[in-house]
Parts: sequence; C-alpha cells; structure tokens
Amino acid sequence: MSGLTVRHPHPSDHAALQGALTDWWGGMGGEAGAQQRRLLVPRLFLQHFAGTSLLVEEPEPAGTRGGAALRAFLIGFLSQTDPDTAYIHFVGVHPEAQRGGLGSALYQRFFDLVREHGRSRVRSITSPVNRNSIAYHTRMGFRIEAGDRTEDGVEVHTDYDGPGLDRVSFVREL
Amino acid sequence: MSGLTVRHPHPSDHAALQGALTDWWGGMGGEAGAQQRRLLVPRLFLQHFAGTSLLVEEPEPAGTRGGAALRAFLIGFLSQTDPDTAYIHFVGVHPEAQRGGLGSALYQRFFDLVREHGRSRVRSITSPVNRNSIAYHTRMGFRIEAGDRTEDGVEVHTDYDGPGLDRVSFVREL
Repeated sequence: MSGLTVRHPHPSDHAALQGALTDWWGGMGGEAGAQQRRLLVPRLFLQHFAGTSLLVEEPEPAGTRGGAALRAFLIGFLSQTDPDTAYIHFVGVHPEAQRGGLGSALYQRFFDLVREHGRSRVRSITSPVNRNSIAYHTRMGFRIEAGDRTEDGVEVHTDYDGPGLDRVSFVREL
Repeated sequence: MSGLTVRHPHPSDHAALQGALTDWWGGMGGEAGAQQRRLLVPRLFLQHFAGTSLLVEEPEPAGTRGGAALRAFLIGFLSQTDPDTAYIHFVGVHPEAQRGGLGSALYQRFFDLVREHGRSRVRSITSPVNRNSIAYHTRMGFRIEAGDRTEDGVEVHTDYDGPGLDRVSFVREL
C-alpha cells in the first residue's frame, strides 16, 4: 500500500463511501444495483463498527485542497452471536487500483485485526452474478459453502437475503 | 404479551421477517419502499446479532400445523465503537397487534437486555415520512437530535443514509 494511508472510518466518511458504491462497480445491476449496494451500507456501520472497518486513501496532494481520495474500503464486524466469527460485510477497491494487491492487503489487515479479538473464522457473502468477487474470495482462501443449487458450477443459496436476492456464502478459517 | 412467546431469532426466521417487512407497513413507499425495508434487514442481523434481537410469536394453535405466527420483532445490537451505546435497527409490529402495548414491551425488553451488557444509551433512526414511528419514539422517551433542517417541526438529517435517504435521529438515556 505504498503512498497510501489506512485508517478506521468516521460517520462523516459515509458520503464518500456512498459515492464509491455508486461508481466503482462499473454499473453492475444498473441503477437498481447501485441503489441496492447503497442500502446495504447504511451509516450505522461507520458509527458502530468503525474499529473493524478500514479505509485506504491517497493523501491530498501537497498545495491542493482536494482532500484525500478513497481508494479502497472494508466494512466488517465481530459476530455478537458466535464468539469465534468475524464477518466481512462489504469490500470495494477503486477500479484504477485493482490488481495491485490492495484488496489482499486490506483482507490481511482485517484478518490480523479480528485475530487480536480472538476470532478464528471469517464469513462473507456475495451475489452469484459477481464472478470477480467469487474468484477473488477463492484466491483469498475462502471456501464456498454448500447451497441449495449450483449456478455455473458455484453453490448458490436461493433467496438467501430475500426474494430474488440469491447469495454465495464463504467461510475462511484464520 | 399474554398468550405470546418471546425468543431470540435464528437465521431460518429470515423469510418470515422478510414477509413482515413486505406486508406490515401498509404499502408505505410502494414496492420501492418494501424493497428498501427488505434490503435494510439482510440475514446477517439474525446470524450475528441474535442475542439482542427479539421475535414475538403467537403459538401454533393446538391440532393445527400452521406454525407459530410472527406478531412483532426487534433487531438490535451493541455498538462495537461506543461501549455505552446500543442500537435499535428495525422494529415491526403486526398491524392487528398494534396499540396493545406489544411494541412498548419489546422496547423495554431490549432496554433491560442491553443494560445487562452495561449500555446506558440507545440510538435509533427513522424515515421523516414515518410519522407514526416519530410519535412512537417520542412516547418511548427518545429525544430527537438536531438535524440540518426541520420538516413539519421535526429535525431531519438530509441524505443521512445516502442520496434521498433522509433520516430522523433518536437517542434515549437508559
């Protein structure tokens, strides 16, 4: 992450995050997809799970007043039901910053962080249409959990998050 | 809550909850409103915040196989950033069960529950169009926090949860 800074979020970072959720997914799912992503990350995650969430920024260039630019984020929390588990809710990397190891570094930071809290397992989900996310989780050592059907060889949970909201479920031991 | 049972949720209760989010708000906001409510309560809340969430059910009538019927629910968690604060994310009461004190009893259970976890403050938000929710929180002892504008005399935070997602913010000391 050379030249970049990593920090925990504040609630006031929510607007920048919402902008990322609108712009970084290359229009995946159209306006409905963008709206769905924005609704999945209400401000509460920045207010109440800041210590297990991370923002990566490019510092403001000297002499300018543009402010730091968001390059990647991870929103995660510690399960309050299962004391062994941490959960990654949403991860984004700016399209121009992808394939440079930024995502992996962010996951590693999260793994280290939650290990310090005694967690031995990380869970996450994604949408079956998000093939990049599925491939990425597999590379990061996540296992795909059995679902109720397969789609292009991937186990899928139909209506996991509600009608029409199918999900792929991942788990990784730390 | 006579004749009703109260318990913590399981992930398998998600479908019943999604049905309630679709049906109980009298079509508030149309299909977009129902979709918005469903997206705000992904399965993760039942998986990882079960101990601070509650379901109220009418037991299955003897001799039938209809299963218990959901009458009310509360989804809440302990803030992991502020050790004094608990957060109520979503509450619903079946329209036929409203005005019978069920909602108040549920809030009281939550207050007692989070007090046991050392919490001294509860936060919550609602949509400015949900006048019933605003009146209800006020009756339950919540204070409305200052926003950036007022709407019909109520302080509102514009775009609090994203573009077009204005919110009223509540806080209650325990």
